[in-house]
Amino acid sequence: MLKTLKKQVYEANMLLPAYNLITFTWGNVSAINRKKGLVVIKPSGVEYDVMKPEDMVVLDLKGNVVEGELNPSSDTPTHLELYRQFPDIGAIVHTHSPWATIWAQAGKDIPAYGTTHGDYIYGAVPCTDRMSDQEIQGEYELETGKIIVESFRTRGIDPNMVPAVLVHSHGPFTWGKTPVEAVHNAVVLEQVAMMAWHTQMLAGEGYPAMQQTLLDKHYLRKHGKNAYYGQKK
Amino acid sequence: MLKTLKKQVYEANMLLPAYNLITFTWGNVSAINRKKGLVVIKPSGVEYDVMKPEDMVVLDLKGNVVEGELNPSSDTPTHLELYRQFPDIGAIVHTHSPWATIWAQAGKDIPAYGTTHGDYIYGAVPCTDRMSDQEIQGEYELETGKIIVESFRTRGIDPNMVPAVLVHSHGPFTWGKTPVEAVHNAVVLEQVAMMAWHTQMLAGEGYPAMQQTLLDKHYLRKHGKNAYYGQKK
Amino acid sequence: MLKTLKKQVYEANMLLPAYNLITFTWGNVSAINRKKGLVVIKPSGVEYDVMKPEDMVVLDLKGNVVEGELNPSSDTPTHLELYRQFPDIGAIVHTHSPWATIWAQAGKDIPAYGTTHGDYIYGAVPCTDRMSDQEIQGEYELETGKIIVESFRTRGIDPNMVPAVLVHSHGPFTWGKTPVEAVHNAVVLEQVAMMAWHTQMLAGEGYPAMQQTLLDKHYLRKHGKNAYYGQKK
Amino acid sequence: MLKTLKKQVYEANMLLPAYNLITFTWGNVSAINRKKGLVVIKPSGVEYDVMKPEDMVVLDLKGNVVEGELNPSSDTPTHLELYRQFPDIGAIVHTHSPWATIWAQAGKDIPAYGTTHGDYIYGAVPCTDRMSDQEIQGEYELETGKIIVESFRTRGIDPNMVPAVLVHSHGPFTWGKTPVEAVHNAVVLEQVAMMAWHTQMLAGEGYPAMQQTLLDKHYLRKHGKNAYYGQKK
Repeated sequence: MLKTLKKQVYEANMLLPAYNLITFTWGNVSAINRKKGLVVIKPSGVEYDVMKPEDMVVLDLKGNVVEGELNPSSDTPTHLELYRQFPDIGAIVHTHSPWATIWAQAGKDIPAYGTTHGDYIYGAVPCTDRMSDQEIQGEYELETGKIIVESFRTRGIDPNMVPAVLVHSHGPFTWGKTPVEAVHNAVVLEQVAMMAWHTQMLAGEGYPAMQQTLLDKHYLRKHGKNAYYGQKK
Repeated sequence: MLKTLKKQVYEANMLLPAYNLITFTWGNVSAINRKKGLVVIKPSGVEYDVMKPEDMVVLDLKGNVVEGELNPSSDTPTHLELYRQFPDIGAIVHTHSPWATIWAQAGKDIPAYGTTHGDYIYGAVPCTDRMSDQEIQGEYELETGKIIVESFRTRGIDPNMVPAVLVHSHGPFTWGKTPVEAVHNAVVLEQVAMMAWHTQMLAGEGYPAMQQTLLDKHYLRKHGKNAYYGQKK
Repeated sequence: MLKTLKKQVYEANMLLPAYNLITFTWGNVSAINRKKGLVVIKPSGVEYDVMKPEDMVVLDLKGNVVEGELNPSSDTPTHLELYRQFPDIGAIVHTHSPWATIWAQAGKDIPAYGTTHGDYIYGAVPCTDRMSDQEIQGEYELETGKIIVESFRTRGIDPNMVPAVLVHSHGPFTWGKTPVEAVHNAVVLEQVAMMAWHTQMLAGEGYPAMQQTLLDKHYLRKHGKNAYYGQKK
Repeated sequence: MLKTLKKQVYEANMLLPAYNLITFTWGNVSAINRKKGLVVIKPSGVEYDVMKPEDMVVLDLKGNVVEGELNPSSDTPTHLELYRQFPDIGAIVHTHSPWATIWAQAGKDIPAYGTTHGDYIYGAVPCTDRMSDQEIQGEYELETGKIIVESFRTRGIDPNMVPAVLVHSHGPFTWGKTPVEAVHNAVVLEQVAMMAWHTQMLAGEGYPAMQQTLLDKHYLRKHGKNAYYGQKK
């Protein structure tokens, strides 16, 4: 079942150590087949050098395991909530990549300081509020998904244009149409997080983000119907 | 004698350069066979590329060499004191890994700023006080062990839940049930030390550690009888 | 047409990932044949592991593609403006290399703090002003070239002695006589940007650049008719 | 002539890129045969991947080339002055390794903040004063050697116990009994420079160096007649 998607999810998981995004097993990638309403996700706590495509776990959107011998990633309820609430996304990556995690630990948005950021992310990467004790002590991983969604809703951010979030005191989630694109966005996020940290230290904390016109220009030359970057397909 | 343990200790020592935890020979791993009361430790100042499993030195808990041609690590009395006072630990790692050493040199605890930390270490990683001139000029390596133990006792920290310490102006020690787990904790410590440094610089010095409920949640979902991370064994 | 130059431009583009100057496809190298008035540049958005020398695009100085199946880099109009206005340069490199980009994002010149800088770059690396909304919304990539040229003209900087610039909120361009020299200057810039960032943090913001006499000494012992570094050729 | 020493100097030069101490050709190693009064040094500006042992240049202590086809390193007069004034050193390394260079550019000594430093270097690594215009415009490379020697003399530092110096606005020189030891000290210097930078940022600028008793303990357990680190030889 979902053999191709399992292979894609497996391969995207293997990209996490290849891109230096994770230490040990601190990350996971999932993807969704929207037609079937089924999600494929990495198993929990399995070493990358022994993991196989067929170890990927298949669940429905309610969290019932429909295929797979192993426990799914403990972060599965977060992934499922994002798939339920962000209907256009096809894959999700979670890591503790250090630079993005530093911003998450500091509880701060990553400002859009330059065109590297603006080429992929339309505005600041939001950091959620701290979770309440009730949320933490309740269905914690589900609540993690809910606080992400709430951050986007209350701040009016479009998840299709800002494919990344920081969970306060925890770390980043990124997404995309495909597993490869979601991993790509995780690499971009890590890079802009590193550069933003040093930009803010150099320029001082009140330093403004890039101009809105420049952000518009860069984001829109790569995305949307008037994009002119790359080769026509 | 203790052939398997020697091989494990040797292999764990070889992991230190593999994980970029050491420069030259600046590190050592030991392990204990609690039944026999014997400790296996790396010899002093031997290059990693010529070191062999049979070079490991075997001592009793009083520091008498019971097997081995080479001098044991000069830090041996520190290891032995930790084995004597922390009865549940099975292996110890000492390195001068840079980020942990930076905190040790600054004489500061590493606050638990996020879930990466909380997944493995239940609270701040303590830094000892500066040693007194008398301690330094006396049995220095033994006194190093004693000041570590004193830090845990006076501050009421359980070494089974906080498997790491910083010795002031020196560097880190970590421990675990097995040599591999002790090295694993050394890698975790280095990673959280790097992220905590940048978190504090970004957020400012008075910035609080993560919430206690979140620390409880993350530490306990991985440790103890209600753990639900990973696969059942 | 221009087979050798295409090969050189291709190989120089391949040096960008080899020197860790780029992530994904975030960079491009071009070169000019001054006699023919033709520029060779990397195609837009092509992955480095599938790119071939014959994929390089040939344009005249007005931007007409005279050879090549693929779209040229979207930054082509910037390159062309620099070739038109800086008549002695033979090749241009654009990257988002992180340390140079950090200074660009902060909108600050990189001061000449030491001899590593002075061996290659005669004075501070200038950062342009922010572009106006009109410039961004107009022929953006051409205007990027124009603001670079304007920075050099209004500040009286000789592009032959300062082979690098930072575009505000964007990233660096470097140049040289040949593609290899332009890439070499991109590596130098990244290294001095990293060291200058840490120098300024350590020494404080008002800290002065190196003495003019020392800059003269180092730049001139490597460049110009009295140079005495290296082997006679 | 001096075939073995040339090979050692060549191999030590090749260690510089292996230990990530240099970019391009920004470094050089020399060694002296004290009996013959002859110095072997790397040629100037030769790429590491084409350099051969027989390219090493042999000079007497007055700077006369006695063997070799190539120009010696442009820093040769600095090396010669150090050999003349520091009679116990056998080899010298010069690099622009980034962390040591950052301190040199900031014009600051590297404080002995911890035992990693104290295991090899007995106290702060001194940074010279800025050179005067007269010194820079005169025999610059010779004057560089003179200001190093003057720093040690006026501050009463023993070059046998502090095998490293920072030249203001330039970079580090290290030395040792042998080429390998001098390179080893360059690696140690880079490591302690990186850790000291972050220690000072974390602890604040007035933060004191390590205690003198701890420095004595660590330096002397590795050096001198009562050393007990490593294996007996």
